Amino acid sequence: MIIILKAGVGEADAKELVQKIESTGLKPLYMPGVERTVLGAIGDERVLQSLHLDSDPRVDEIKPILSKYKQVSRELNPIDTHVMLGNHAVGGEKFTVIAGPCGVEGRDQILDVAEMVKGHGVAALRGGAFKPRTSPYSFQGMGEAGLKLLKEANALTGLPTVSEVIEASDVDLMAQYVDGLQIGARNMQNFRLLEAAGECGLPVLLKRGMSATIEEFLLAAEYIVNAGNPNVILCERGIRTFETATRNTLDLNAVAYLKRKTHLPVLVDPSHGTGIRELVAPLSYASAAVGADGIIVEAHMNPKEALSDGHQSLDGNDFAALMSGLRPFVEAAGKRL
Amino acid sequence: MIIILKAGVGEADAKELVQKIESTGLKPLYMPGVERTVLGAIGDERVLQSLHLDSDPRVDEIKPILSKYKQVSRELNPIDTHVMLGNHAVGGEKFTVIAGPCGVEGRDQILDVAEMVKGHGVAALRGGAFKPRTSPYSFQGMGEAGLKLLKEANALTGLPTVSEVIEASDVDLMAQYVDGLQIGARNMQNFRLLEAAGECGLPVLLKRGMSATIEEFLLAAEYIVNAGNPNVILCERGIRTFETATRNTLDLNAVAYLKRKTHLPVLVDPSHGTGIRELVAPLSYASAAVGADGIIVEAHMNPKEALSDGHQSLDGNDFAALMSGLRPFVEAAGKRL
Amino acid sequence: MIIILKAGVGEADAKELVQKIESTGLKPLYMPGVERTVLGAIGDERVLQSLHLDSDPRVDEIKPILSKYKQVSRELNPIDTHVMLGNHAVGGEKFTVIAGPCGVEGRDQILDVAEMVKGHGVAALRGGAFKPRTSPYSFQGMGEAGLKLLKEANALTGLPTVSEVIEASDVDLMAQYVDGLQIGARNMQNFRLLEAAGECGLPVLLKRGMSATIEEFLLAAEYIVNAGNPNVILCERGIRTFETATRNTLDLNAVAYLKRKTHLPVLVDPSHGTGIRELVAPLSYASAAVGADGIIVEAHMNPKEALSDGHQSLDGNDFAALMSGLRPFVEAAGKRL
Amino acid sequence: MIIILKAGVGEADAKELVQKIESTGLKPLYMPGVERTVLGAIGDERVLQSLHLDSDPRVDEIKPILSKYKQVSRELNPIDTHVMLGNHAVGGEKFTVIAGPCGVEGRDQILDVAEMVKGHGVAALRGGAFKPRTSPYSFQGMGEAGLKLLKEANALTGLPTVSEVIEASDVDLMAQYVDGLQIGARNMQNFRLLEAAGECGLPVLLKRGMSATIEEFLLAAEYIVNAGNPNVILCERGIRTFETATRNTLDLNAVAYLKRKTHLPVLVDPSHGTGIRELVAPLSYASAAVGADGIIVEAHMNPKEALSDGHQSLDGNDFAALMSGLRPFVEAAGKRL
Repeated sequence: MIIILKAGVGEADAKELVQKIESTGLKPLYMPGVERTVLGAIGDERVLQSLHLDSDPRVDEIKPILSKYKQVSRELNPIDTHVMLGNHAVGGEKFTVIAGPCGVEGRDQILDVAEMVKGHGVAALRGGAFKPRTSPYSFQGMGEAGLKLLKEANALTGLPTVSEVIEASDVDLMAQYVDGLQIGARNMQNFRLLEAAGECGLPVLLKRGMSATIEEFLLAAEYIVNAGNPNVILCERGIRTFETATRNTLDLNAVAYLKRKTHLPVLVDPSHGTGIRELVAPLSYASAAVGADGIIVEAHMNPKEALSDGHQSLDGNDFAALMSGLRPFVEAAGKRL
Repeated sequence: MIIILKAGVGEADAKELVQKIESTGLKPLYMPGVERTVLGAIGDERVLQSLHLDSDPRVDEIKPILSKYKQVSRELNPIDTHVMLGNHAVGGEKFTVIAGPCGVEGRDQILDVAEMVKGHGVAALRGGAFKPRTSPYSFQGMGEAGLKLLKEANALTGLPTVSEVIEASDVDLMAQYVDGLQIGARNMQNFRLLEAAGECGLPVLLKRGMSATIEEFLLAAEYIVNAGNPNVILCERGIRTFETATRNTLDLNAVAYLKRKTHLPVLVDPSHGTGIRELVAPLSYASAAVGADGIIVEAHMNPKEALSDGHQSLDGNDFAALMSGLRPFVEAAGKRL
Repeated sequence: MIIILKAGVGEADAKELVQKIESTGLKPLYMPGVERTVLGAIGDERVLQSLHLDSDPRVDEIKPILSKYKQVSRELNPIDTHVMLGNHAVGGEKFTVIAGPCGVEGRDQILDVAEMVKGHGVAALRGGAFKPRTSPYSFQGMGEAGLKLLKEANALTGLPTVSEVIEASDVDLMAQYVDGLQIGARNMQNFRLLEAAGECGLPVLLKRGMSATIEEFLLAAEYIVNAGNPNVILCERGIRTFETATRNTLDLNAVAYLKRKTHLPVLVDPSHGTGIRELVAPLSYASAAVGADGIIVEAHMNPKEALSDGHQSLDGNDFAALMSGLRPFVEAAGKRL
Repeated sequence: MIIILKAGVGEADAKELVQKIESTGLKPLYMPGVERTVLGAIGDERVLQSLHLDSDPRVDEIKPILSKYKQVSRELNPIDTHVMLGNHAVGGEKFTVIAGPCGVEGRDQILDVAEMVKGHGVAALRGGAFKPRTSPYSFQGMGEAGLKLLKEANALTGLPTVSEVIEASDVDLMAQYVDGLQIGARNMQNFRLLEAAGECGLPVLLKRGMSATIEEFLLAAEYIVNAGNPNVILCERGIRTFETATRNTLDLNAVAYLKRKTHLPVLVDPSHGTGIRELVAPLSYASAAVGADGIIVEAHMNPKEALSDGHQSLDGNDFAALMSGLRPFVEAAGKRL
């Protein structure tokens, strides 16, 4: 850790801080400069937290050197993690496609779309039973009834299912019905929920918050792993920027960056990432090309009637076109569909 | 609501959509233009949700005319809401100052700071018992023990207390100890929590999410009010932008804008809004000038030893200077301190 | 155009505005609603500018229906534009790769890298002679001497050259030496420069401003085309967001979106778009997959010695790897390298 | 400067870099850590630029310690700069109000508004003759004819005038007619223009770019000062963020921050900063409270007829109300109007 002192802080003060650093067992460094003094601390700088140096009025800035996350870091664990979603290994040689409607809306709706996407060889079925909606007047999901329909779709097609959990106290209920928990963008820093998901053994598909930095995203994953669950799948789903032509700005830089920083698998959600049906396919291809481990896509037999996100959902024809269009890019990336 | 059709959509399709609008009881409008056709729907456009027009592939864009929120809207309810925090009316003639440490860290810590801020005439004491922290390795708060200390501080000083709730299932516990619930920026769209806070009668200090638009902020408040609790205090606490010199970008435009759009009181948090101790006072003055109903400020007897946010906390001297510096601006704004 | 009046504006005022609209020759619409009145204007709404309705205190909001750009719009001109850069058609079947150093630094430097990239079959050589730099103390480019070296590199390799122009008065000078003008992100709204580039016949590679919306980007292109030069190549180079792990956030959504909105070719600059050498290749692949017409990449024989942008420049080995890695993605996209 | 090496870089490589640092005359520091090695360089780190350490593949990150700007820094020059605009000292005890129309549109328009604002005691008159406009189809300003009218307004009222310059080659022309040059947000990094303004003796009102960091803003000012002109006035005018309810997000944090980092005067433009007429007054008050040296405000006798920015312009009544409302806040801030 590098500690930059304010201009004008004298030697006595600096030396006092050096002693504080030394008292934690770290090796201190004292670097008096022309305009200001810089201190260093060599060792596991996480122990320096107890000193609260960033609160010291003599300190201008703290520059950490080590990442704040450990267990999800590729530096400490270079081998790719494979997360088993049913029998499918996310993060392995196969490019993972998870598809299904935004929300479970009824028996026919979910079973029909499950069969359709199954026919195209997807790895898992998605569908929300509890929907976090910006307005209290929007469709809030079917709740447990929706989970039961997901279970039925799983029985029918054999596809593992993934569904969003929006509260810690729902984790056990969800675990009775689905094969993977999704934690949505709005809950990426709902730390109670992260911990509850960490205490459960199910795979967790963790979506990046819409204004979360990559470091915060990895720290959210660290919460889950630290609570005992190593089965975390990261998902880039677009960040909020000044651009309004698209619903979000899909950050594919982040995918390539994450693949270098963490051993966890990384998926992309081009449906939320763009918010525009016609852009889902090209951004899916780009996701494969940039090195993502898969995509999660909204599909609906009749998007016009969808109770949420219809404008970004693919129908049967669109989905067929996506899957055939995707194949050469997946193969170019050295993976299989 | 205005519905813009894609270029090339013909009269037959447009007329079919017109009939759908008519079927909801709204008055439709048909505007064939040179380059594209535009439809209108006059009446309470919220009923149009059931049509899912934004999912229709013939529709290019939907432009709503009415705001999505109702109960928090000044248009529908022009009279300022006063929220009673203990005996203090937030939103009234007195400029509200809420102060205290980021987190409750121990008995002496919280009692000492409570007495200090009480001495300066603040309206309420703040202090977190459950701390949402970016890293799982940071101090997570004292939990219920912290709440008990807040209760003790209240008994000692008479100051009403406000503390952050981070999960729906904690609301009842919190209600035993504190006078106001804070919902933090990271939970602004934790809809279960909003509903739980709505079912409780306590005042709710709702902080703006760090990438929430003003409309989303008001819709989050609408969740609470719609669940039965009209006692909502909004709090601008800085948004996330590209600027990194300050921790967040305090959006005082939003304060002036909110005062025109909603009847709810609006506070400002200059501590999180700047993240820099030296900037807390000038931004507090600016908050009073722009028309805010008050501020919430972090104070600590010894910021150097604070377990969180010490770098932005004021000590006793800083706090005294803030309060005396603030007075003329509050008076210029036609309020009292 | 849709004109939403403020709540409370009465019929007489609305009718006066309707007459103003009618006076421009457009067909007006009058839609009195429950909460507010909405007006419409059918026809070429660009003539409404003269009414300055957005300044009228009775008007709450103006919602334009037509795009503000015309000549660059695919709706008005659906056929892809091919821009000739030397003998190479940008926007055609071949995927365009433009490569070279950030800045021209000396004779050997530019000739060596020109031969290297030529050996890999690139379409054109890039290299800056006038460098816009954030700090006045950074290397500002070789000026005309650099242009002469680019001309020499062109003579040696036959590669057409592209170089940045930073001021209107330099356009004629540049035109003596290079085959294409680059207008950088910082100058995307230097309207004098856009007009000067529009009066010159050379191809213009227009980079998106770092906080420019897609609409502003297209309007900047419209300036050039409107001044008489149809040879505009758009270039997405990353936008500024809250994320700091990468230098910018490369917006590949924008590429797919632009391909649908405009007939102009669209390139991607993954070097500035990421700012990290290791991310250039994966984002180049993603650019090909998303449908870009090509990439522009920084290459340098010895990035360690580069006077600018060395951290994001590829050396000979990196560049060879990029080109061979790129091929299957370009082919998957139905183009040739 | 702190240089963090990549994990796995060995002692030999680190020592080679240490020698390079030593060769520049700086004192190097070698800090081998548990997970990675850190190097330091003590002295004027600006000389390290010549090493291009950020391009070295062994280097993970460079953390500068000193600011990149010098001449505008308060650390190096703690005394407030006063910039003379005519006889008025910007940055002194008087709070500076500059007012006038967005653009000069005609003789009566500019003379009338000049007399109106003069009557309220403003320090200077603003008005654009060359207008940078997003669309090529918008009003582009009157050009030199507009400058002549400004000169006439100056003769009539005695008010010094400020007008925007949009190209380096126009500086001399402008200098014949106006008392201060404005460099607009879109040209904040038009470095040729900064240099040209630096070679001219006139006061320069430099607006912050809409996505410029505070550091980039100060470096732009440094360009002007470094070219020989110390008369720079900074102007915060709102930054571009995700929020679209207001035209920009006025960053008053930046004003308080700038006042601590630089000796240059800092104004605020609440007209562009909000884009909404009704918000101009409250944000003007907040600007005074936060410590700004003044404001620049758009005023027009008949905003409904304004050729640009009418929606954010104040008319005579609004302007009178602003000036009387402003007074108590200016006085609370210890300044005079």
